[in-house]
Amino acid sequence: MTHPISNEHTPVQSTLVVEYRLRCVAGESASVKAEGIALEQTVELAGDCVSDAIREEWVGEVLSLSELDENLWRCRIAYNPALAGEELSQLLNTLFGNISLKSGIFIENIDWPVAMLKAFGGPGHGIEGLRRHLDVPGGLPLTCTALKPVGLSPSGLAELAFAFACGGVDIIKDDHGIANQPGAPYRERLAACQAAIERANQQTGKRAVYFPNATAPARLLGERFAAARDAGCFGVLLSPWLCGIDSIRWARDEFGLAVMAHPALTGSYFQSDHGLDPALVLGDLFRIAGADASIYPNAGGRFGFSVDTCEAINHRLRRPLGGLRAAAPTPGGGMNVRDAPAWIERYGADTIVLIGGSLYAQGDVTAASKRLLTALGR
Amino acid sequence: MTHPISNEHTPVQSTLVVEYRLRCVAGESASVKAEGIALEQTVELAGDCVSDAIREEWVGEVLSLSELDENLWRCRIAYNPALAGEELSQLLNTLFGNISLKSGIFIENIDWPVAMLKAFGGPGHGIEGLRRHLDVPGGLPLTCTALKPVGLSPSGLAELAFAFACGGVDIIKDDHGIANQPGAPYRERLAACQAAIERANQQTGKRAVYFPNATAPARLLGERFAAARDAGCFGVLLSPWLCGIDSIRWARDEFGLAVMAHPALTGSYFQSDHGLDPALVLGDLFRIAGADASIYPNAGGRFGFSVDTCEAINHRLRRPLGGLRAAAPTPGGGMNVRDAPAWIERYGADTIVLIGGSLYAQGDVTAASKRLLTALGR
Repeated sequence: MTHPISNEHTPVQSTLVVEYRLRCVAGESASVKAEGIALEQTVELAGDCVSDAIREEWVGEVLSLSELDENLWRCRIAYNPALAGEELSQLLNTLFGNISLKSGIFIENIDWPVAMLKAFGGPGHGIEGLRRHLDVPGGLPLTCTALKPVGLSPSGLAELAFAFACGGVDIIKDDHGIANQPGAPYRERLAACQAAIERANQQTGKRAVYFPNATAPARLLGERFAAARDAGCFGVLLSPWLCGIDSIRWARDEFGLAVMAHPALTGSYFQSDHGLDPALVLGDLFRIAGADASIYPNAGGRFGFSVDTCEAINHRLRRPLGGLRAAAPTPGGGMNVRDAPAWIERYGADTIVLIGGSLYAQGDVTAASKRLLTALGR
Repeated sequence: MTHPISNEHTPVQSTLVVEYRLRCVAGESASVKAEGIALEQTVELAGDCVSDAIREEWVGEVLSLSELDENLWRCRIAYNPALAGEELSQLLNTLFGNISLKSGIFIENIDWPVAMLKAFGGPGHGIEGLRRHLDVPGGLPLTCTALKPVGLSPSGLAELAFAFACGGVDIIKDDHGIANQPGAPYRERLAACQAAIERANQQTGKRAVYFPNATAPARLLGERFAAARDAGCFGVLLSPWLCGIDSIRWARDEFGLAVMAHPALTGSYFQSDHGLDPALVLGDLFRIAGADASIYPNAGGRFGFSVDTCEAINHRLRRPLGGLRAAAPTPGGGMNVRDAPAWIERYGADTIVLIGGSLYAQGDVTAASKRLLTALGR
């Protein structure tokens, strides 16, 4: 699969520039802290144990350091992109591996070298590709729901899939907690739900898709992807923090699958003084790795993201970025049918409305889905 | 590979019992918070959307809830172990996937069902297996160092490997930041370093081993493991949070490799009011997944763990646990040669002393390694 780079104007930059906000404790030197990060995340040795040649090529370079407030600093460090060796697992390690074990280090922004963006490639389909496949024109939002709860049989899940598809939901995914439990193992569930969606599409004339949760141990990922592709699925759901962020790229490149990414296990990085900005993880990183859609917990639901955070994620997923396709923001986590139109008004139509519980709560999920679609002007 | 279960007396328990410390904000009900976790981590639906049969079998059961202090509670929730579907990725999801995105939830303890311990299997070699292979009798600590910095060529790294092995270091691993960078790609580095170790062993008559860093994207893990095994390596280094925790089990079962686990990217879970106890992640979880040794940042080094935290990790790695082999605590992260004997005095001999920088700082790493071994009574 090729990933054409557009002619969009992007300043060409050859280093990976990471911008940190540093919280120092009393007596801690911000410049020692910054230099410590530049060594820790590269050579893991004291500066005087490193040759000039290695330092020049591999140690991070502190570009700037400025005081924001008492004991609060901003610093920018430039890294050699070759540190990542074209592997997203090692990119994450370079960004936050060892320093996750320190404190007072928060990554606010990353300037990506264009060559790195090209190498990782971004979404294979993106918002436009999803629209084309689902036959939903620009200006209208896309919709998604989740099959649940865990414990249902493959036929029980398939029945729900059929009902949602008849109601007009575009993307019907497994709940991210449905993996390979006894009673509904992956392959049986996949076959039943995909068949149900196809049956519904024949009735409705629409093009709903089923995204099975393919998150799995590394040794099983390849066969899960192959099974999804062979069953005719357009895409899969993946939780990159459970199965490795590089698995998104694998699903894209070797299996041609679209990927919807789920934020499970990422929340601990989103502290105020330590971690990474959620928009970098759920926006930039997931998009760069190849996610066509990125689920995040919407403001006002069961989780604690602010509207500002959600809009920052939306921006990172859709902004011009080295020619990468735009990915679809997928707010969920307790959004209800009543409020969905207002959220789309706010976030824009290039958004996937992910609603589960609020449809289930209405009993007849086909009728509930139809009401959602109508409310969204679909 | 079989994992014989000893006759050790372990109370048989059929559910996965997770003990949380809950920090409530003003006006937040601890019981609502506890019930919310039990639903969120299982069915992801409101309780009234779930049938009695599903609730009975799959929803977590709040066993107890007690107040510790103002707005601070302890609660125990029992889960059906089948939620994990015998996959460690899904076990992590059940433990902390969605609730990582909430706040004020800290997992203090986990009571593991014996059947789950048997299924995941634990270390393939453990401390005793490492001792046997390395020919180091009980009562003496093991030693480990890291090849670095990134930027050295395979022959440069191999030269260091030879020098450390001649100095008597038992386990010579890649630095965890050395992945597949240009200039020292995995296969060339593996061949050069393994040959260097074997050459050194012929000279010294000792049994040093080289653990290459096999951490990689999921699609490449299998071939990295195979290459390590085929080169004659006894084990590999893995960062489970970068490549998926299940990859430890894969290295053990399909390739017979020993695994040393590295804590990269785990630090964000170790907050005081939200996350998991470090001893659960770097102790229980890594051991259960099959790590024979678990690296953690020792107290007094470049990172912030307390001695109590380190001792809790040691305990979790070595305590009786459903017949699983004991894994080797591997304190590192800035330990120096001078203090190593005192740490062993404190932690006990069933420990791997991991020292990098303090050996490099002495210039002649063979001589420095010999001094370390002598200091440790080896």
